[in-house]
Amino acid sequence: MSNSPKHFGDRLTAAIKSKRTPLVVGLDPRWNNLPDEIKSNAKQAEAFETFCKAIIDVVADKVPAVKPQSAFFEQLGPAGVVALGNVTQYAHAKGLLTIMDAKRGDIGSTATAYAKAYLDRSDDGPWRCDSLTVNPYLGDDSLTPFCDVADEHGAGIFVLAKTSNPGSKTFQEKTFTDPPQKLFECVADHLQGLAAANLGESGYGNVGAVVGATWPEELVALRKRMPNVIFLIPGFGAQGGSAADIAGGLDENGLGGVINSSRGIIFAYERPEFESIVKWQDAVALATDMAIGEIAAHSTAGKLRR
Amino acid sequence: MSNSPKHFGDRLTAAIKSKRTPLVVGLDPRWNNLPDEIKSNAKQAEAFETFCKAIIDVVADKVPAVKPQSAFFEQLGPAGVVALGNVTQYAHAKGLLTIMDAKRGDIGSTATAYAKAYLDRSDDGPWRCDSLTVNPYLGDDSLTPFCDVADEHGAGIFVLAKTSNPGSKTFQEKTFTDPPQKLFECVADHLQGLAAANLGESGYGNVGAVVGATWPEELVALRKRMPNVIFLIPGFGAQGGSAADIAGGLDENGLGGVINSSRGIIFAYERPEFESIVKWQDAVALATDMAIGEIAAHSTAGKLRR
Repeated sequence: MSNSPKHFGDRLTAAIKSKRTPLVVGLDPRWNNLPDEIKSNAKQAEAFETFCKAIIDVVADKVPAVKPQSAFFEQLGPAGVVALGNVTQYAHAKGLLTIMDAKRGDIGSTATAYAKAYLDRSDDGPWRCDSLTVNPYLGDDSLTPFCDVADEHGAGIFVLAKTSNPGSKTFQEKTFTDPPQKLFECVADHLQGLAAANLGESGYGNVGAVVGATWPEELVALRKRMPNVIFLIPGFGAQGGSAADIAGGLDENGLGGVINSSRGIIFAYERPEFESIVKWQDAVALATDMAIGEIAAHSTAGKLRR
Repeated sequence: MSNSPKHFGDRLTAAIKSKRTPLVVGLDPRWNNLPDEIKSNAKQAEAFETFCKAIIDVVADKVPAVKPQSAFFEQLGPAGVVALGNVTQYAHAKGLLTIMDAKRGDIGSTATAYAKAYLDRSDDGPWRCDSLTVNPYLGDDSLTPFCDVADEHGAGIFVLAKTSNPGSKTFQEKTFTDPPQKLFECVADHLQGLAAANLGESGYGNVGAVVGATWPEELVALRKRMPNVIFLIPGFGAQGGSAADIAGGLDENGLGGVINSSRGIIFAYERPEFESIVKWQDAVALATDMAIGEIAAHSTAGKLRR
């Protein structure tokens, strides 16, 4: 699937329908949380790779995509980045779409370099991700190179709009005068324009938006404001967003958004309620199934399972 | 120098005084621009490493710091990132400070992971950079982890305020209502507060700001608005900013800012006026000396050379 040049909005929508859930699993490896059996016989970068591949084995048949968090791999230096590359290729081989969560952003030819790095899905592409998270602060001409490369390769970008952290109020919620709107609304309008410029058959574009699960009211308002933009919704689970909170981020068919859970799933074996489960992978599988069930029960994503 | 736990603002100020110039050289390797002798006998990542090390050899005695642009290395995949690590270590060994231009930004423990990745200057640190460029869009709690790690390790961050591209108008120049100020001014006020919280003997903090050379008026105004913030000023040379344009970004002693030139120096051998120079490194050396001279002639940086 991930080698098709098809439109990203369509590919992601098809994957959501195929797996019958908008849940995606965040790969955020942290040394202190790894199972002892993985920590005991490997260097850190190797352990991250082994762990993430094991998570992929558990979730590959359950969810449409995984979202590797680049920061945790970069923290190990170049060796960690090599592991990240291996994890990404493994996810593709298992039929999963990849959302590289690296929040890149730059200008001109530098932005093009980032875009080609992650979104060139040709055989020559070094990373061949299906999509990448992008930061909008540098402005319209910093997003265009990402859109161009994404369109060329049937890849996608998810641009930060309203992030899940409390500090998103510092700048994102400040109100402009002309027209009167908040920064994140201004970004949202820009993203809707970019997405609409290259719509797929699904009705969604290659340009998505990051909107945190921790802002249920904004999710509802932004869903209306960006009808052609797929949402990447972080903050579900460990960060405090409930399945009911994310409901507003999906369209009437349970589409138009993916909901990320990281720690709540990949470190499920640390959760008190799963203490009696012997094999850590079984806890991960159960947590994934439970998250899928919760989301289906509290949102239009339930329609995907009928 | 780069293994000292001392304050970054002080270390950078000392390096500027020692080299008697605020010029820093951007390491932006691009395959098509490399000298033929480097392209002919190496893989791309190896060629990038060889080229950047050769640039470092030329400029190490001339400038206080180099600024590797992570995007161009990431574009080569994990092998490129390995090369980036080698280039960074080589710069340190040659006594240069490093400004990793990666424009990272994230929240909570993920921001901490990025900060530790690049700014942990202990022997265990994977990258051991002296400073890192950071994107402010995610808000105050996304900057705090970078500040904390920077303070701990005598490292610094340069946060995007007013970037050099035309598209910086899209969001950065929009005006908020309460108080009436532009987004980049709002960011600037926040950075001044962060810098002032941990001032060095130089009068500058560990928190810097990126302000483009292409906005001379804003440079003057922001210099007053952020008296304790060191500026990283890109856009000089190839992007159109002149030595006169950047003058307002420095304080009355020629300190408080570093001025980056990338293409104009590292690919100087492609400039028509240097066509007659046989050895490409000689063109790089001459372009560096000329940029240092231009900056000294048109700004308070001239005082550093008396």
